[in-house]
This record gives sequence, C-alpha cells and structure tokens, in this order.
Amino acid sequence: MPKIDLDSIEQTNRTGYPPPFDAPVAGRWQRPLAAPSGLTDFGVRQVTLKPGAWSSQRHWHDGEDEFLVMVAGEAVLVEDEGRTLLRAGDCAAWPKGTGNGHHLINESAADCVFVVVGGGICTGGGYSDIDMLFTAEGKYTRKDGTPYDAVRR
Amino acid sequence: MPKIDLDSIEQTNRTGYPPPFDAPVAGRWQRPLAAPSGLTDFGVRQVTLKPGAWSSQRHWHDGEDEFLVMVAGEAVLVEDEGRTLLRAGDCAAWPKGTGNGHHLINESAADCVFVVVGGGICTGGGYSDIDMLFTAEGKYTRKDGTPYDAVRR
Repeated sequence: MPKIDLDSIEQTNRTGYPPPFDAPVAGRWQRPLAAPSGLTDFGVRQVTLKPGAWSSQRHWHDGEDEFLVMVAGEAVLVEDEGRTLLRAGDCAAWPKGTGNGHHLINESAADCVFVVVGGGICTGGGYSDIDMLFTAEGKYTRKDGTPYDAVRR
Repeated sequence: MPKIDLDSIEQTNRTGYPPPFDAPVAGRWQRPLAAPSGLTDFGVRQVTLKPGAWSSQRHWHDGEDEFLVMVAGEAVLVEDEGRTLLRAGDCAAWPKGTGNGHHLINESAADCVFVVVGGGICTGGGYSDIDMLFTAEGKYTRKDGTPYDAVRR
C-alpha cells in the first residue's frame, strides 16, 4: 500500500560532517522516504529534530532545489536575512544556487518533525558559517580546496 | 525569505475535468508552491479538501512519481487494494507507471490539508473508475482515444 509504514524505515542520526561540525546535528533523526517507496524522480526525508538539534550546518546547494513542510512542532529557520519561526503547516523553498545558506534549529522543548524534498543534480554547495564546502563527488573540503577526512552522507 | 507566504498565493478550485467528472473536485482548493518560489526541479502543491471533496478522480501517472504528506485533518486514500485513513504526519508515495489509481476523499466534517510533490516527465496516465485517460499533450480522451472537449490543468 502506498501509505508509507514510517516505523518500518530505520531512523538514523548518522552524519558525514567532520568534527566539530557534527555535534549540532547529533539530535537530528531522519529516515529516507523516496528510495524505500520506489520513487526516483526526487528525494524525500522525514526529519525529527530533538530539542536543541540543528537540521544541518547552514548550507546551500548549487544544483538542487529544496522544499520543506513542517509537520509537527516548531523550529527556527536561519538564513542571511535572519530568523523565521516555522510551525506545523508552514512551508519553505530554497531554489538552487542562491549562496544564501539555511538551516533549522529546534529551540523548543519538544521534538519537531518536517518533511524535506530535494531535486536536481548534486553539483556541490557551501556552508555559510564554517570553513567547508561539499563537492559533486560527495567530499568535504575547506574553502581553499584542502580536503577534510570525511565522506558526505 | 524562503518561508512561503501561503496567503499570497491564490487558491483555486479550477479543474480541467470534463463534466460530470469535475463535480467531486469542486471542494478541492489548491495553490502551487514550486513556481512561485522559484523551484524548477519538481512540482509542489498545497491542497485543502473541504468535507466531501475528492483530491482527483482516481488516477495514476505513467511518467511521474508522486509523494504526499498529510499536514492537517484526515482523508481516506482509495486504491485498488482498498481504503487507508491518512492523518496528519502520514505520508504516501506513488511510483510512476503502476496502473494502480489513487485518490483521497475527505470523509470527515472538517477541512484537511496536504502537500503533494510530483517529479519526472508527463507521459500521460489513466483513471481507474471512469472512461478517461490523459495524454502527454495535456488532453483528456476516452479509453478508445476519442477526445473530450476539455484541457487538463
């Protein structure tokens, strides 16, 4: 049945970020939804942020559009322009290649849950607040191109 | 700001379905979210179903994956296998080309809201319960190929 049995898909808080950039996402628990459902035209993840957790380092994608809908709880969206509270039902969209990084921080005392969709082709991207880029090949480097000992997941 | 100002995007209950197939979707109010936000890698709509409304005639896509997350309220998903209740937070996925039609019916007394994502390329598709197909060119025909006087929207 196309209703997705969410509990049957493992949640993980795994990240490929090199330390110390991994610490803020330790409370990000996510499960893939597209591949387990047979979808190939775009990617989808369900993400739960524990109180205090970040969705990611503040980042953008050079070649992939992103869309998010908040499903439960609330989180603060941080971008170059500032902070915006997202509550259940709120939606956000990040066209590829803006260079304006974004991430969500759960500043509440309860879990929040969102669904995020990604499309396009990974051609790399960057991080707004730290000395890191990601490449089309799934590697992390400093902005001068020297690699981190880490693999993007 | 990438938080989408939902109220700024017009909701419409327009449909291209020829009569009498248009009547069940008269209470389906939707707004596009991708194009107004500058997203091009996939399509996204926010859909509100009034009590009694259908999301569509029961259909499938030959060339486009679909994904749905229920945001508020509840609706019944109908497919070849039967009926499944979808509540806020539930997700459903329909890989392209299954020939197993799906739609949602709001059998509750309150509005329900969901977000639906579509990707891939429109190569046509079909309807499970009525004598209709849709074509890659955006036309509606009977299953014998004779056209309806209607344009798919």
